[in-house]
Formats: sequence, structure tokens, C-alpha cells
Amino acid sequence: MKNDIAIGIDIGGTKISASAVQKGEIIGKIHAYKTPLTTEGILSTVLEAVETINNEHKSKYVGIATAGAVNLENTTVIGSTGNLPQGYSNIEFKKIIEKKFNLQTLIENDANAAAWAEYRYGAAKGHQNTIIITLGTGIGGGIVVNGQLLRGKSGSAAEVGHMQLSWKKERKCTCGAWDCWEAYASGTGYAINAGEMALELKSLDSEILKTKQTKTLTTHDIIEGLKNNDPFAQKVHERWEKLVLTGLIGLANVFDPESIVISGGMAKFLNFEKIEKQLNSQLVVPDVKILHASMDNNAGMIGAAMLAVEKL
Amino acid sequence: MKNDIAIGIDIGGTKISASAVQKGEIIGKIHAYKTPLTTEGILSTVLEAVETINNEHKSKYVGIATAGAVNLENTTVIGSTGNLPQGYSNIEFKKIIEKKFNLQTLIENDANAAAWAEYRYGAAKGHQNTIIITLGTGIGGGIVVNGQLLRGKSGSAAEVGHMQLSWKKERKCTCGAWDCWEAYASGTGYAINAGEMALELKSLDSEILKTKQTKTLTTHDIIEGLKNNDPFAQKVHERWEKLVLTGLIGLANVFDPESIVISGGMAKFLNFEKIEKQLNSQLVVPDVKILHASMDNNAGMIGAAMLAVEKL
Repeated sequence: MKNDIAIGIDIGGTKISASAVQKGEIIGKIHAYKTPLTTEGILSTVLEAVETINNEHKSKYVGIATAGAVNLENTTVIGSTGNLPQGYSNIEFKKIIEKKFNLQTLIENDANAAAWAEYRYGAAKGHQNTIIITLGTGIGGGIVVNGQLLRGKSGSAAEVGHMQLSWKKERKCTCGAWDCWEAYASGTGYAINAGEMALELKSLDSEILKTKQTKTLTTHDIIEGLKNNDPFAQKVHERWEKLVLTGLIGLANVFDPESIVISGGMAKFLNFEKIEKQLNSQLVVPDVKILHASMDNNAGMIGAAMLAVEKL
Repeated sequence: MKNDIAIGIDIGGTKISASAVQKGEIIGKIHAYKTPLTTEGILSTVLEAVETINNEHKSKYVGIATAGAVNLENTTVIGSTGNLPQGYSNIEFKKIIEKKFNLQTLIENDANAAAWAEYRYGAAKGHQNTIIITLGTGIGGGIVVNGQLLRGKSGSAAEVGHMQLSWKKERKCTCGAWDCWEAYASGTGYAINAGEMALELKSLDSEILKTKQTKTLTTHDIIEGLKNNDPFAQKVHERWEKLVLTGLIGLANVFDPESIVISGGMAKFLNFEKIEKQLNSQLVVPDVKILHASMDNNAGMIGAAMLAVEKL
């Protein structure tokens, strides 16, 4: 019988997770490690994870989901890698793992890997055209077109957070450009919106505005305020819904997808039914489903593992 | 020898063009007809074109590029069809042509067909990921991903003109939604911008503002003004450049394409070198080439013909 077990590893800025994966499901224990601060530390953690899991479940492949863009051949990390240490993109995971363990290894960007997992085994199963959005500290994305990952000329595609919502240079984005969707509709953007709106809406009868410092308003403050029907919190939240919606409309009109899957820490604050209805009332393409991600934190690990099985 | 001649037909709201096409090139006379106002008239014009061209160049295929979305099987027009008469989408071009002439027939949306022509034989030849934008009365698009047309779940994809540049409901778009790229950066948008800016910039020392009616300012007025270094014309044109750029940035970050090809009546007013430079200074993906379309008015006809040869 063909061995179709793969070790899935997800390397993020704060955490490295790893597990054995088979047919789109985690079949063993999930091993989690705090991401070391050095490249040597990261490499040895990854090698330790591979060795441990391979002993638990004799595997044939390794799939690594990583922050940062990955080259088109899925062999190495390229370009920017967020919170990971300098030199991270020089670590030769594939070469080293293949030599040491004789396990065929594939590397993919974490958002792409997560999109693949949702498309093949999750919320968007069977949707040949789907977009997976991560609404978190930033806004990330993975896109499936005609049943294939959209990777672009260099492997950097699907940077959906950097569509611009204004041409007026109103808010700088961390990327250096202006008015990116991420600057307004991410968790970070949500708090900035709250700070700006506190100045505009000073006269509202709001407990939050009376008791909190405008400059240090957090997403948490607003979400708590919503529970008490605080009018300021409601205004901030409504604006965020509009900002999320604006980006979704553009993506839906460009891709005509069956679905858009929304994951990430901010997803739970979104009224999916409401936003799906508002979206579909403004499109020039047929209706799009707005779906909850079905394997949130493990999607990257599972997707990378399954890409390794399917592609190698 | 295999017969690889196809009859390409482009059905637009004002004109129907047709010619024999081989290996991406027009090999005979281009026949042009004013688009009839009835469905019967359009059908008989198309049949006449097929018969005439097939007599000139014995063909094997017919490729029809049409306004409006086309189903995924490339057999029939679906949905909205712009300036064409009611009932247009019910015309069974494929069935009728195949029965009457025994020529295998494929139908494709005109922007997609044009994108295919530019990708296979034109400005974007060899670029596996490219976007063709038509800047005209509206903004249309055709997109190639991994060497395939992006068609979406229903064949309606690539509606790039309906990405939104604001969440503030500032300008209504003809599609019924608000603040679409097309509402600002198309030829129509250009004139609307001029009208709005005339009110904001009353005090400028501009011949245009002194001699023209604000409400009836045309793109032509502004372009003429640019030749005389009219300061108002310059401001209007600069804003348009920013508006074009804003949409291009989003598309480039989402698709990571090798190139974006710009065609349409407004393309000649764009400084390609300048916009390419501005674009690449603001992307999170590697550089993108901004290219002139190489077969402008004939791209739809050529692309549809070649899709018929390649796919049937």
C-alpha cells in the first residue's frame, strides 16, 4: 500500500506546529514549539519535530508552511519573512531534511497552504475558485483559481491586504504604501479606526469615550462595548464591516469565486450572514458564499502536508 | 496538413468585425458591419460574415468574441450584454453555425478573448500571469493565471472595473454599487472628475475654466488643455493618473503578474513609463511591466479565433 502520510509543519513568527497528516486529517499528536530567535534554533526545532513525528508515524513526505513568499518550485523561502530572524530565508530546509531523513520535502507560503487545505478538505471543498482571507493583525490571503493555487510570477501572489481603498493618501500602511485594505480592516486597523473616530464622535454618549484614553483604544475595548450596546462601539464596528465589505466586493468581482472563506482572529467578530447579503447585493458577478474556515489554526500544516503528498 | 484557419468575429455594441485568422494573424480582409438593432439582424450579419469569409479562406473553426459573460463551456452568452438588444443572449450562434456551415464554433467574452490574444501572440507573449485592462468608456479586463484564462465559477470573472476605491459612498457607479474603479478612472470617470474639480478649483488661472461650461467638460477639453499647459487640465490629468494607479496596485499585489497590458481609447493618454515606475515603488510583490497592447482593435477577433483552434 502506498504510504501517504506526510509530516506537516507550520513555521510562524511566534510558534512552530507540527503533526502527521493523512488524507487531509491530523492523525497524531500536534507538537508545538515557541519559535526560536535564531536561524540555527529554528532549523534544529524543525529537525527535531520531523524526527519525533517520523518515529510516531512512519512518513514519506514533509510539507512546510512558512511565513514569507516561497519560490515557484516550492523549494525555498524568498523575500520578506515577517517576524522571523534575518537569514531565515537561507535555511535549506528541503535539502537538509531530504538528506537527513530521506523524506521528500515541499515548502509553501502559509496562507497558500491554508487555502489549499480549505479547498481540498475544508470549507471550500469542491469550489474550483475560492479565496481564503485571514483577518488578523494584518490581512492575508490564499487564492484558488481553476483548482490551482494562484502563485503569480514569483510565488508572492494573493497579497489581498494590499489592495488600496483610497487614492487620497489618508493612512500609511506598514508596507510603505498608502490606504491598503489591511491598514483599515485588519485588527490593527480596527484599533486605529477607533482612535480616529473617538475624535470625530466626541459628543456621543458612550461609556468607552468617557472612561478610556482615545489613543490606547483596543479592539477588545470596542468588542466589550458592543456587548453593552455602546453607541461608539457600534459605530466603530459598523465602519469596520463596511471596510471589510469593500475589499470583499473587489475580490468577488475580479475572481467570480464560488466562495470566500474567512479565517483569523478577527473572523469571529464578523456577522457572516449580514456580510454575505450585503456583498451579493453589490456584485456584478453571480452570488458568492461567505464561509467560516473549518480548520483554522491547523490549515497551514495540513495544506502543506497534502501539497507534499499530491505534488511530490 | 491540418487546417488551422479560424474565422474570428467580434460582436460589440456598435460594430461587428470579422476576418480569417491563422497562427494569431489576420490573413484576409477585415469585414466590418454596423451592429444591427435586432437579434435577427445580428444573427444574419454573423452568418453572412461566416459565409463570405469561409468562401475566401476555407476555414475549420469559428471563434466569436462577444460583449457580456459567456458560460464556462464557451457555448452560449449569459447575463448582461451591454448595448446589445434584448434577447441577444438567446441567439444560438454555436448550434446554428455548426449546423449550417459545419464549422466548430467557440464563444468567449470579448475582454477574455483579447487577453488571450495578447498573451499568446501579443504584448504579453510568454507571460504566464498577465492582466489586460481596457481603459475606455468603462474599465474592462481579461486575466491570465498560470497560462489559463481566469473565468471564475460562471464565466463572469475579471470585472476589474468594479473594485472599489472607497468605502465612503462618494460616487455611484453604473453597476448600481458605489465608488468602483470604473466610476473614477474610465473615460467617463475622467469627465466627471473634471466637472467636480472645476468647482473645487475655481480660482485657478485656467483658460478651460474661463471658457467652458463646468457641467459639460469633456475628456477632449482636458486633453486639449494639457497641450497648452493649462493648470486645471494638469490637475485633472494628475488625479486620473493616481486613480488609474490605485487600481493597478491592487491588481498587481493580488496577481503578482509579469505584466499588465493596457488597451482602450484612454490608454494613449497614459504615460506608461511614469506609471510603471510609480507602480513598482508601491508594491509588495516583485516588479510588474506596464505594456501597450499590441493588437488593440483586433485582439478580440484574433483571440476568439485562436481559442477555437486551440480548444476545439
